[in-house]
Amino acid sequence: MYLSGLILEIVVEHITRDKEAYFEKTKKEMERYFQMPNWTIPQKVALTCRILADQGHESGLAGQITARGEKPDTYWMLSFGLGFDEASASNIVLVDDDLNILEGEGMVNPSNRFHLWVYRHRPNVSAIVHTHPPYVSALSLIGQPLVAAHMDTSMFYDDCAYLPYWPGAPVGDEEGKLIHEALGDKRAILLAHHGQLVATGSIEESCVLGIFIERAARMQILASSAGTVQSLDPKNAKEAHDYRLSKKSIEGSFHYYARKLLKRDGDEALQ
Amino acid sequence: MYLSGLILEIVVEHITRDKEAYFEKTKKEMERYFQMPNWTIPQKVALTCRILADQGHESGLAGQITARGEKPDTYWMLSFGLGFDEASASNIVLVDDDLNILEGEGMVNPSNRFHLWVYRHRPNVSAIVHTHPPYVSALSLIGQPLVAAHMDTSMFYDDCAYLPYWPGAPVGDEEGKLIHEALGDKRAILLAHHGQLVATGSIEESCVLGIFIERAARMQILASSAGTVQSLDPKNAKEAHDYRLSKKSIEGSFHYYARKLLKRDGDEALQ
Amino acid sequence: MYLSGLILEIVVEHITRDKEAYFEKTKKEMERYFQMPNWTIPQKVALTCRILADQGHESGLAGQITARGEKPDTYWMLSFGLGFDEASASNIVLVDDDLNILEGEGMVNPSNRFHLWVYRHRPNVSAIVHTHPPYVSALSLIGQPLVAAHMDTSMFYDDCAYLPYWPGAPVGDEEGKLIHEALGDKRAILLAHHGQLVATGSIEESCVLGIFIERAARMQILASSAGTVQSLDPKNAKEAHDYRLSKKSIEGSFHYYARKLLKRDGDEALQ
Amino acid sequence: MYLSGLILEIVVEHITRDKEAYFEKTKKEMERYFQMPNWTIPQKVALTCRILADQGHESGLAGQITARGEKPDTYWMLSFGLGFDEASASNIVLVDDDLNILEGEGMVNPSNRFHLWVYRHRPNVSAIVHTHPPYVSALSLIGQPLVAAHMDTSMFYDDCAYLPYWPGAPVGDEEGKLIHEALGDKRAILLAHHGQLVATGSIEESCVLGIFIERAARMQILASSAGTVQSLDPKNAKEAHDYRLSKKSIEGSFHYYARKLLKRDGDEALQ
Repeated sequence: MYLSGLILEIVVEHITRDKEAYFEKTKKEMERYFQMPNWTIPQKVALTCRILADQGHESGLAGQITARGEKPDTYWMLSFGLGFDEASASNIVLVDDDLNILEGEGMVNPSNRFHLWVYRHRPNVSAIVHTHPPYVSALSLIGQPLVAAHMDTSMFYDDCAYLPYWPGAPVGDEEGKLIHEALGDKRAILLAHHGQLVATGSIEESCVLGIFIERAARMQILASSAGTVQSLDPKNAKEAHDYRLSKKSIEGSFHYYARKLLKRDGDEALQ
Repeated sequence: MYLSGLILEIVVEHITRDKEAYFEKTKKEMERYFQMPNWTIPQKVALTCRILADQGHESGLAGQITARGEKPDTYWMLSFGLGFDEASASNIVLVDDDLNILEGEGMVNPSNRFHLWVYRHRPNVSAIVHTHPPYVSALSLIGQPLVAAHMDTSMFYDDCAYLPYWPGAPVGDEEGKLIHEALGDKRAILLAHHGQLVATGSIEESCVLGIFIERAARMQILASSAGTVQSLDPKNAKEAHDYRLSKKSIEGSFHYYARKLLKRDGDEALQ
Repeated sequence: MYLSGLILEIVVEHITRDKEAYFEKTKKEMERYFQMPNWTIPQKVALTCRILADQGHESGLAGQITARGEKPDTYWMLSFGLGFDEASASNIVLVDDDLNILEGEGMVNPSNRFHLWVYRHRPNVSAIVHTHPPYVSALSLIGQPLVAAHMDTSMFYDDCAYLPYWPGAPVGDEEGKLIHEALGDKRAILLAHHGQLVATGSIEESCVLGIFIERAARMQILASSAGTVQSLDPKNAKEAHDYRLSKKSIEGSFHYYARKLLKRDGDEALQ
Repeated sequence: MYLSGLILEIVVEHITRDKEAYFEKTKKEMERYFQMPNWTIPQKVALTCRILADQGHESGLAGQITARGEKPDTYWMLSFGLGFDEASASNIVLVDDDLNILEGEGMVNPSNRFHLWVYRHRPNVSAIVHTHPPYVSALSLIGQPLVAAHMDTSMFYDDCAYLPYWPGAPVGDEEGKLIHEALGDKRAILLAHHGQLVATGSIEESCVLGIFIERAARMQILASSAGTVQSLDPKNAKEAHDYRLSKKSIEGSFHYYARKLLKRDGDEALQ
């Protein structure tokens, strides 16, 4: 009892600060310590493809990862017919706004057309990750939107749209119109009977959100099989949403997944 | 507001085409770019065995993958006693219509007899994949047919039969009669208390559908644990069914899975 | 129509046989083709440990695999403190009927005491596999017996007991009494809040049944999360039960799993 | 009948002992046989990071593993920005009671601040494992505490608290106050919408309990998807709780997981 009282006293005297002060300190330190290599856009696209393959996002040849090119109306994407795990900078091709190849060889995935519709209407979007991973796919069958109910998936809080209608195999322009309208100005969308799409301002962010939207779906499916998912407190959810999406936090996570991949595959992805 | 209006205007002027035009273009490009190596039938059977093992279809020695031989009433199949992951072209044996070995050494799996019944009644079937993977097995216990409710599993839309009765260990002719009748002219069947069977016009197609029927079952189980599976729109489902089953689309997927396997195992499967 | 009629006619003429004839033929061929290496008892115990580890049966140091020795009242078992994946013939020790070491070095797992109770009361039992794998563990929490509802798990049809009471950490004699009495003359038992035990006439059979009882539990959990498990037809279930448990069928499966393991680990398990 | 009666008679004569005697014997033998290498604190922290990564505890860069230093008010922890799988003794830094680095280079994870609150109020706590693994994360969404309903998870029986409120991203002092108060004098806590925390008297114990709290959550989710989780008998649960937490039992388990890791990675973790 006496010892316990003594300790409590020390604690009371211990320095505490406002949460804002900690956020500031963290931001500054991340600026200093979280440094990324100077990878090119095709290298980052290839890394993202392989990272998502490693996270189980493969569904045969379905799904696409694209990024805006340096010049207007140009886009980088994996040559069609290759799996995500086969991506390398050298098989990422550059296409124009009608999916004609400008650089590189091979064929363009016709399903990439709906990405163009998103890029046209969202000038702030630089990279799109669209995949059909297992839990997102399962969740897409039950007519319910994605629920961001965990700290680690708070990036999707009030930032994930839902398209309850499936327009069929997405090779045409109709799908592009439908999907970009449903997406609106959000970062992500759950597509019924189909999969997910993440559209953000950087490849790093789209990659990390691509990983975590599948985890959000996994949590939702597993939790729902055992009970009822409880909502997040809106104020805290919004704060965590912004904290998680800070540039350096995203880059730190992307860099970690890239290191893991490069350790396993050597620099195949970068060639 | 102004910027957004400007962009919208550009979009309106952007070229759009009929969906049919895109399907045509895609078909032509796939013809050009999706080229498969000239693998023999036993090599393709061995690759399919290993691909399905890699996809978790193993259930001890249960399950069989077979293909029609070049001559009438002959069939290629894995020598009994080997696991799918041990398949190589050299241990795929050729048998006659009564399961007597014509080429190769070893024993024939007596359960392959019901495959013969399917081949006899379906001249357009060239390859059968019959396995007991985890989610198909679980789904087979609850008295419900497979539901094709996702774009990636639309190949099974109105194309997967259901046999609600389990006739016991399938080593005799009775099972063959029962299974081929229940299958009818469909591409696939869910067998209660047992597993799945895919019967199509090529090894490539049976392999890819073998992979995706397990994914369809996984989606159905996971989705059902969290909510109620919603149906696909019939028109879109039928369109996607046909698109997914186009020859080149199937070959592209098979080739991808084969490359993945060959990268991991070297050319063991082809020897 | 005409072609289809023609084919039907050929089919009708095709030779069919009684199921019994196929069972006989299969038995004879298995006798000839399914040959096992001459592994010693400790080698088979070590292989079984590693096979089950590979199947995900690890739960820290919990679980034990034991086999009768050549001399009465002697038993082979893994030295305590090692994981299943570390088992080698050289760390399998021989103990007497009070768990004192007769051959080899190390410590005996005190929880192995309840195995002795089973061996004493079941002279036909030569090997016991007791593990706490994930799905068996989950199933053991809900107060329900294991349901053998799939062809591949028919070995447990009317052959898996259930102990609904958990007697605490099993290091004493009370547990041995309780467990062997609940087991009775069955091959397996589901132990509430604890795990599973398989007790059969050979190491090979206990190994294969150890693998498949976890799969039975997995099917039951997954199926129950999505619907209601339907029962097997008793007559077919009994027939499949016996067919699956035929000596050569079991040996064929064990040999397959052992080859897979030896290919991965080299002959570590046999040293 | 006669034979069976004979065997029963032998059994009756067989020596049996009190459970207490077996516990005593086991304890003595473990003291002799379960010997650990002399790893330093940073080496044990690095091993724990890698063991938990191997057990699937990764959630990007979220989660932290910390341990008290040799001097008062000092703590060892992984340099921020590294994944658990990248931990090595050389990137474990020593910090003071305000998270300033005393030894080593890099940045400190600001979320580690709430660990300090636990250390201050619990002088008997030497190591904390805080992670967001898949099943704990899913369980944390449904407003229910963790249920210890299996022998292998009895360490959490009456020893796992529950914080039903989520205070937002834990970088400040408020979270530390809230979490340490909810933890009280228990070994573990389930944090709603967040993850789990284990706080015990040794790195070995926190590591092993970190592994098993995720297994407890997995059992609870899977069991709940199929039925209703039944409670443990309190007396047996308490006995098993203490038995499982004995120093040597914990060390034996930790040593096993460490050997497994070192076999896979070489001594990277120890450098």
